[in-house]
Order: sequence, then C-alpha cells, then structure tokens
Amino acid sequence: MKQYERAVIVGVGLLGGSIGLALRARKLAKYVVGISPRGSSLALAIELGAIDSASTSFAAACRDADLAIVCTPVQSVAEHVLQCYQAMPTDSLITDVGSTKESIVAAIGRTEAYRSFIGSHPLAGSEKSGVEHARDSLFNDKLVVVTPADIDNDANHEVVARQSQLAAGVELMWQSLGARTLKMSPRAHDAAVAQISHLPHLLASALAASTPPELLPLAASGWCDTTRVAAGGVLLWRQILEDNRQPVIAALEGFSTQLNEWLTALRDNDVQKLEALLLEGKQKRDALGN
Amino acid sequence: MKQYERAVIVGVGLLGGSIGLALRARKLAKYVVGISPRGSSLALAIELGAIDSASTSFAAACRDADLAIVCTPVQSVAEHVLQCYQAMPTDSLITDVGSTKESIVAAIGRTEAYRSFIGSHPLAGSEKSGVEHARDSLFNDKLVVVTPADIDNDANHEVVARQSQLAAGVELMWQSLGARTLKMSPRAHDAAVAQISHLPHLLASALAASTPPELLPLAASGWCDTTRVAAGGVLLWRQILEDNRQPVIAALEGFSTQLNEWLTALRDNDVQKLEALLLEGKQKRDALGN
Repeated sequence: MKQYERAVIVGVGLLGGSIGLALRARKLAKYVVGISPRGSSLALAIELGAIDSASTSFAAACRDADLAIVCTPVQSVAEHVLQCYQAMPTDSLITDVGSTKESIVAAIGRTEAYRSFIGSHPLAGSEKSGVEHARDSLFNDKLVVVTPADIDNDANHEVVARQSQLAAGVELMWQSLGARTLKMSPRAHDAAVAQISHLPHLLASALAASTPPELLPLAASGWCDTTRVAAGGVLLWRQILEDNRQPVIAALEGFSTQLNEWLTALRDNDVQKLEALLLEGKQKRDALGN
Repeated sequence: MKQYERAVIVGVGLLGGSIGLALRARKLAKYVVGISPRGSSLALAIELGAIDSASTSFAAACRDADLAIVCTPVQSVAEHVLQCYQAMPTDSLITDVGSTKESIVAAIGRTEAYRSFIGSHPLAGSEKSGVEHARDSLFNDKLVVVTPADIDNDANHEVVARQSQLAAGVELMWQSLGARTLKMSPRAHDAAVAQISHLPHLLASALAASTPPELLPLAASGWCDTTRVAAGGVLLWRQILEDNRQPVIAALEGFSTQLNEWLTALRDNDVQKLEALLLEGKQKRDALGN
C-alpha cells in the first residue's frame, strides 16, 4: 500500500468527497486538497473531513502533489486533467471518475497529459449528489473499471512502460480504497456501460416521465425502485448521454426490439411467449442476486 | 375495530402470510385458518405464527368463518371466492388481494358470491414470495385499493346497501392492519396499475433479459434497482399481464412513444431535448421521494 504525499481532488461531490474521506480514513494520503473549478465553496467538504484544505487554483493546489483525481462532469474532465498535469510534478498519477471513457482518453491523448493519466470509472454512483452524501465506505466491494489508452503496436517502449506503470498505480489506489478493479479498453467500457448503466437510466427517466401525475399516489415499491435513478442530476446525465451517444443508441435500439416482442406477445395473447419473456428476465435478474 | 371470530386465508404466501401475522398480532381475529388449495404443506405458516391451523378443505375451514381473504394467483381468485362463499355463513365478508380487479369482480358478479365479496388490492407486493418473507408490518402505511362492483342505477336497494356495507367492512379491516385505503372502480383500478405497476414490471423484465450475460459483472446499483421486480414469480406475472392485457398494451404503447422521443433526440444529437426529457423524468421522480 502506497501512501501519497499530497492528493488533489477536483470536484468534491459524492464521488470526490467519498474519495477524500476514504484516502484520509485509510491514511493513504498525508494531505488532501480539494479544488472547486467553478469556485463554489468547499467549506462543507472541509467540515465533513473529506479534504484538509480547499483551493480554486490548480497551480497552488497541484504543486508537489503526487496524485490527482478529477471528479467533474464528463465534458470537463479532459480540461481539468490537463490543468492538473501542467501544475504537477512529471511523475505524478492522474485519474478521473467519468462515466464515459473513450472521448476523455482520446482528448487527453492529444495532449502531453497522457504521460500521467489513466482513466477510471468507479461503478459506485447514485441518484444522490453532493458531498453531504459522501462516505468513506462508498467504494467497498464496488467495481472500478480502469481504461488504459489503446496504444499502437509501434509506439515506443517508454510510452508503453509508462502506461503500464500508471495502470498498476491506479488499480492499487482503488484497491486500497476497498474496490475491485477491472481493465478494459475505453471503447469496450463505453459500449458496456451504455447497456448496463445508461440504458437503465434512460428507461427509468422515460418511465417516470410517462406516468400520469394523478397516478403517483398509487406508486408502490416496484415503481419507486424501477425509477429511482431518474432522480439523478440532469446536467450530469445529459453530458453522459451526449458523450456516449452512439453506444446508447445501439443499446436503446436493441431494447426497443425486445419491447416489440412483448407488445406482439400481448397483442396476440400469446401466453407461452409472455411466460418465456418473463422467465428470461427473471433468470437474468436472479443470476445477480440482491 | 372489529374482532373477527374466525378468519380464513386462502393461499398463505407473502401476502396471505402477512395478513395472518397481522390479524394475529393485532388480535383482529380470534382464530386464523389457512387453506392451501393445491394441498401444499402449511406447516411453515403454522410454525411462523401466520395461521393457527391449516386445512385443504374449504367446507371444514370456512364453516363458522366470518372473514375470508383469497390470496391466490389472479386466475384462481374467483373460483376460490365462490368456494369460500358456499361454505361460509351468508353475512360473512370475503375479499382478495389480486393485482387485477375487473375480470375478478365481473366473474364473481355472475355468481351468488357477490353478496359477500368486495375486491381489494394491497399495493404491498414484492419480488419475494413465500410465507418465509411474510411479516406483520407489511401493510403499514401501504395503500390498499378497494373496488366495489359498478352497480346499475336500477339495481335494487338491498344490493346497493349490502355492497356499501361490505366496502366499509373491508376498508376497516385493511385500516386495522395498518394500511390506507382508496376506493376505485375495478376498471379504473386496472388502467391505473397497468401504468404504475405492470408496465414497470414489464420494463424491468425486458431490461434484464436484454442485458448480455457477460456484462452482468458490471451491473451496479442502478441496474439492480431498475430490474429488481423482474425477479418476481413468472406464473403470477404471466397471469396478471394476461388478465390485464388491454390496459397493459395501452400503457406500453404510450411508453414506446416516449422512448421514440428519446431515440430521436439521441439520433439528432438534440441536447436541449435530452435535457428536457431528463428533467421531466427527474421532476416526476422527485415528486415522490424515496
């Protein structure tokens, strides 16, 4: 277990705050600085013990830092990674927590910041946001996908070796925070989360929106669970869907085909088919448990 | 609060078992008999304290009973209500817990059993089933929809008065078990639950089924919550969807229209529209809380 001298967290909300709490609780960093890129107050983050101090300056916060984790909405990540890189020592480690990876990794690959950066996506989000919901146990037993850049076979050995070293470092960091890690290419990651995370969000939102308000008093636990994630932040999710547009379209088209099978079975009153569809859903769901 | 002399529960699973536990814990019935129409053992229900004794005979169980609650799958309810009615004193109260109401109330309306029957639907189900999950607090603060038959204006006064008396009795019973009650016509009930309960179930099931198995290890709380109800019993849900086919088709068609708006917004990269759709979902979801 490596102890970092000075960790920088850019964006101290649910995820950034939980990282700060966990780094401090597990003594994985001697000092944790929070950066608020939009200059909003980090007083609550300090009060809750998520960070030691706050800054609005990348230059001041990142000097002598050996770890930075960018926890801002996906469309700001690449810019904030570059700002960290330019202010940090060259052998530092920078990662992020963005829900999409291909565009972020590609944008950073077009800058010198790729020398310090490996993308991460902790599958530990929630419909809740804000540092007030942060907790040091958020990553316990959660999966974090780590996405090294796809490197051309003819890339020089130094770059390959550095990426490999960074990946090992970021995996160790997440494991030290209690998480499990899995390496995937950015593209494979984005296709996977389109199906397993972004499609469920879209369906939950569409289901909530399509419910006539006068029926809401009849909503029981089924409706509440199925729509829970629809309460997530609009800006956050708009950026995710926009950024991961093509894989989400593919996932939604696949789902629509599935839904048409249901509609046909209902219209035809094909009870055997209905039973087969229900069984297929139950078996997949049961495979995962609670 | 009325105390029943002898309550009969037909089908002692999650709901029937919870009714038994609650009737006994609150001393609302002096004696509770469980009937297992298919003859399966009710030993566990007795052991757990959900019923005082078990029977496979309607004649034996229902003699001198003043309350019966039929908790069997929707396509068996009408038959079991009639069997209770034929074995019970004429001034008894019979209700059920079926998730659909129009076909059940209509089927019973074609028999003499309508003299003792008022339909109920406690919105307290779960993906879990079986008396082992029953608990006496299951109905606390839950909504129970009570569905008196639509009576023609020219029906005789005695029938109208009897229906009204039965409805008051069944509402009082559910309230005594801790629930809130709401009266609706069977048809209005079925249209409402198609939207607020059956559509979510269908979507959860379709989402689970459409997820490639190799992605299941990446499933986080969003996927798990959105698909939770898909673990519900296949037979139970096939009967519900079959029985409530037309309202479910209407709800699914409405949802498909909503989904097409998402698909168009994604294909057009219309971020304003995406944001509007997400906001609509969030506002509806936030209106309900947790």
